[in-house]
Amino acid sequence: MPASSSSETQQPLYKQVADTLAKLIADGVLRAGERTPSLRAVCDQHGVSMSTAVQAFVELESRGLVEPRHKSGFFVKAPAKGRLDLPGPPRVPMSGSLGNRHASLFDAVVAGNVVAFGGAVPGADMLPTVKLNRLLAEKARHAGTRGVMYDLPPGSEMLRRQISKRMMKAGAVVAPAEIITTCGATEALMLCLRAVTKPGDVVAVETPTYFGILHVLEALALRALEIPADAQHGMRLDVLERVLKTQRVDACIAVPSFSNPLGASMPDEARQRLVALLRKREIPLIEDDVFGELPFGTKRARACKSFDESGLVLFCSSFSKTLAPGYRVGWIVPGRYYHAVRMAKLTHTLATATLPELAVAGFLAEGGYDHWLRSVRAAYKENVARAGRAILEGFPAGTTVSVPQGGFLLWVTMPPKVDAIELYDRALAKGISIAPGHLFSLEQRYTNCIRISCGERWSPRIEDAVRTLGALAKQQMK
Amino acid sequence: MPASSSSETQQPLYKQVADTLAKLIADGVLRAGERTPSLRAVCDQHGVSMSTAVQAFVELESRGLVEPRHKSGFFVKAPAKGRLDLPGPPRVPMSGSLGNRHASLFDAVVAGNVVAFGGAVPGADMLPTVKLNRLLAEKARHAGTRGVMYDLPPGSEMLRRQISKRMMKAGAVVAPAEIITTCGATEALMLCLRAVTKPGDVVAVETPTYFGILHVLEALALRALEIPADAQHGMRLDVLERVLKTQRVDACIAVPSFSNPLGASMPDEARQRLVALLRKREIPLIEDDVFGELPFGTKRARACKSFDESGLVLFCSSFSKTLAPGYRVGWIVPGRYYHAVRMAKLTHTLATATLPELAVAGFLAEGGYDHWLRSVRAAYKENVARAGRAILEGFPAGTTVSVPQGGFLLWVTMPPKVDAIELYDRALAKGISIAPGHLFSLEQRYTNCIRISCGERWSPRIEDAVRTLGALAKQQMK
Repeated sequence: MPASSSSETQQPLYKQVADTLAKLIADGVLRAGERTPSLRAVCDQHGVSMSTAVQAFVELESRGLVEPRHKSGFFVKAPAKGRLDLPGPPRVPMSGSLGNRHASLFDAVVAGNVVAFGGAVPGADMLPTVKLNRLLAEKARHAGTRGVMYDLPPGSEMLRRQISKRMMKAGAVVAPAEIITTCGATEALMLCLRAVTKPGDVVAVETPTYFGILHVLEALALRALEIPADAQHGMRLDVLERVLKTQRVDACIAVPSFSNPLGASMPDEARQRLVALLRKREIPLIEDDVFGELPFGTKRARACKSFDESGLVLFCSSFSKTLAPGYRVGWIVPGRYYHAVRMAKLTHTLATATLPELAVAGFLAEGGYDHWLRSVRAAYKENVARAGRAILEGFPAGTTVSVPQGGFLLWVTMPPKVDAIELYDRALAKGISIAPGHLFSLEQRYTNCIRISCGERWSPRIEDAVRTLGALAKQQMK
Repeated sequence: MPASSSSETQQPLYKQVADTLAKLIADGVLRAGERTPSLRAVCDQHGVSMSTAVQAFVELESRGLVEPRHKSGFFVKAPAKGRLDLPGPPRVPMSGSLGNRHASLFDAVVAGNVVAFGGAVPGADMLPTVKLNRLLAEKARHAGTRGVMYDLPPGSEMLRRQISKRMMKAGAVVAPAEIITTCGATEALMLCLRAVTKPGDVVAVETPTYFGILHVLEALALRALEIPADAQHGMRLDVLERVLKTQRVDACIAVPSFSNPLGASMPDEARQRLVALLRKREIPLIEDDVFGELPFGTKRARACKSFDESGLVLFCSSFSKTLAPGYRVGWIVPGRYYHAVRMAKLTHTLATATLPELAVAGFLAEGGYDHWLRSVRAAYKENVARAGRAILEGFPAGTTVSVPQGGFLLWVTMPPKVDAIELYDRALAKGISIAPGHLFSLEQRYTNCIRISCGERWSPRIEDAVRTLGALAKQQMK
């Protein structure tokens, strides 16, 4: 039997509220297209807190029963064709509310009518769409059989050769034969963790950290050990060193270049020290470099991998922040874990889609990548600077904003009185998505913080949305 | 620390042999391009059995140290550029020898100069390559931004609508909103198991069963409970029923249409009974239908999903056997586990590659799929019949061959004296790959069986290879 039976008897409060509302919908009391009771009304009727009510709506949304509409709250969704009862309530809660919020956040990111500050996704106009799609079309026309057949791990040699060249710019001499391609960095992270850990293991991560990392850890039954990060320099190595002396740590994940959400950048010496620290205890380091190609300055930092003499560093990255998220092309340099990672890849997805790999390889081979990167880096720098200024102007007094040196994320710390989940909800009702701080830790640490993604090119619409966010946050100060 | 330290002290015999040979290579005693000692010589020098020696070479091959060459045994590979020591020996053995053999099998499948009876992969000329690649090119040219952006789960609606239509032919009324797309059926299986099980759970599978299934179970720390399968009708429901009365079973995986490797086809009534049996105990059924579209007759069997009234059936399939393995497009109808599967998908790969999804959707929408399927089904029927006859003619007396009603796999049972691993090795040396029976069970059940994939169109080259296999098997009878 699945692990459902026990959890059903001890429903958390927000689920009870969601179930009651779901029943009203199932019974036809609330009909498709109708506005649901407001959050405030739900609080009053059920005697629950605002954040419980929000969680209940997030749950209903992820069950496909309600949808947020621009500036008007939640509405009952039309049922899926042919069936009234689907998608049904989950019988096996996979990862509790963290998971649900994660899913709902992505929903907000893709919803067409939303100003998407929520997901760390590049704006469509920041991607070389035309050239890439042209290349993919070309590859598809000329690849013949090769295009439809498996490109089994380690994946396209053409692409691995190009990646090998790129990695030299990060100071890492890596042969094509040391690289394995993946379906984006998400799969890369998953495969690395599978290769170096087993359920119950302890994995050191930065805090705050990308919720996707926390989610993968949860899915693999790993325990996250949150090491404080400095907004400028990333993971606090003094703390890590102390922790290593007293606690068991089985693996470490770091995002040394423009971390998510802080945008911190670890200095080269710190990277070297991190590698040495872990090396001493033979602890594998998973280096997530998805933002590595997006420094605001002219210099690309050295990868931790470049300091790795023992094969303990597993370097992960993708082209999802710089070229095409939808192509799903990432890679791993797994060091001494090559074999285990390759096996995990076979078990997980068997292969990476062939033609997108070839299109990316073609793009890199044509030689315009650096030129392209220069222009988007300048645009992101501009976006981030403008958004930072607008936030300092429009948000409640006492708000602070990170000053990243690359990437396109801002970490906003508001006065403690502001609750980020409430802000998330109110913003969504106005057609703006943000990532509430709650998501970036397993503990209730960042309840007054939000992450703002500046992936889209600066525009009056964006500026307006930042101003609206500020006004909403100010309302919470009263 | 990774789970390596303890296992290194208790190396299995074949690893010890592999390590010794690896050291000879590292020390330059055996140099790149040189022939390795023969299997026989390794047996003699190390006092090990032939199958241990074979396993040692499989291990060396998957470490990237040696490669088989057509008709001449194993040779030391040239080291990867820039480094001499990579890919290094795995420090974290992920899944023991099952995993290594699995990997090496796939290597054999893709090696250009090999007659590939080993992998269940369709022949290149059995796929609508030109049309598909043309469609992908078209989508890439016209999709614009949509082509490069995420298509987050549940995945392309256009594709889900087409899948919904196809599923009606299997008797299953499934709305597009009930479908989640995946990176092929491998990911589908993984996500379903994640959604319905937890480590330590017991999963009933057919025996013999596809080694990929055993491998995923092993990766998720699940225990396989092997239920005998009938070569004609698939999983023995009388046995399953008895087992359910006395043993804990947490989930069940069945391949009711043209199972892998037996090619068995479960009658409609048996499918209904299977669903009912599991329903009584609320046990989820994962239905793997990858060969479902390839019956030799005119009728497509009803999916178990079509009998599912409680949402306990998770239906998995892909287009890898019929359209394009390299596009990596599959899907799940997760029933009541919709939410958990969607969350797992977000955690595993975030999204399926957008443009391949759209190309497949376009192919289905254009309406030529059934026409195409008719022609390949006829070809597979012919391949399988001819291979079956050739095997009965050329293999040792007492050999039996399955008589599948669809798909393109044959299960060959040779006299007990023939060892399939030895045959695998000897065949590979002659440029022919097969899947040894050992792979299809966690127990030492099918040591005298092999699976022959008839995905490639029948040709004198194939006929020759079958004859060679038969002769090699006969040698073992002496």
